[in-house]
Amino acid sequence: MDVMTDLPHPARDEIRIEAVLHALADPVRLQMVRVLAQLPDDGGIACGAIELPISKSTRTHHIRTLREAGVVWVRPEGTARLTTLRRDDLDALYPGMLDGILKAPR
Amino acid sequence: MDVMTDLPHPARDEIRIEAVLHALADPVRLQMVRVLAQLPDDGGIACGAIELPISKSTRTHHIRTLREAGVVWVRPEGTARLTTLRRDDLDALYPGMLDGILKAPR
Repeated sequence: MDVMTDLPHPARDEIRIEAVLHALADPVRLQMVRVLAQLPDDGGIACGAIELPISKSTRTHHIRTLREAGVVWVRPEGTARLTTLRRDDLDALYPGMLDGILKAPR
Repeated sequence: MDVMTDLPHPARDEIRIEAVLHALADPVRLQMVRVLAQLPDDGGIACGAIELPISKSTRTHHIRTLREAGVVWVRPEGTARLTTLRRDDLDALYPGMLDGILKAPR
């Protein structure tokens, strides 16, 4: 597994609202984003560290969907991949959207 | 066609963020919401009046998805159905979300 490879991410001006909304519309991915939103900006979490009752391959699929939509950064860190929320980009493109979604009743 | 029948809508506390995001993630439905957002709150538009290059049945399907997610009200008005955005409900549940989405670059 080539965990050290740089993964493709859309630049800010390539991020499309439809893809972001699709990425966030899934309950598992939304829960991942809720967890990521609680981390400091310079943090990052190994995707396996987010407690979710799903398989590793399902987890990888969801992280990829979030990454390709422009919702998260995934960067290699040693032999792991660390995931962080692209809060700056989302807030710049869609001011207030992310905070509004995070306020959703559970 | 029973256009006079009252259609089911979720109450505010039945609206789920995942369903709202799914409803908004489609380009056609998002365009409908953009048009609806420009109408006065006491307005309403016959869904056929929104200019979109889609068939009537596709249009009906999309309006239904928006209605069932809690994004729009659809009420009978004579022999037509008028559609309005549930802005109050969305703003109360997810403050800032809708405005952020509507600010998305096109």
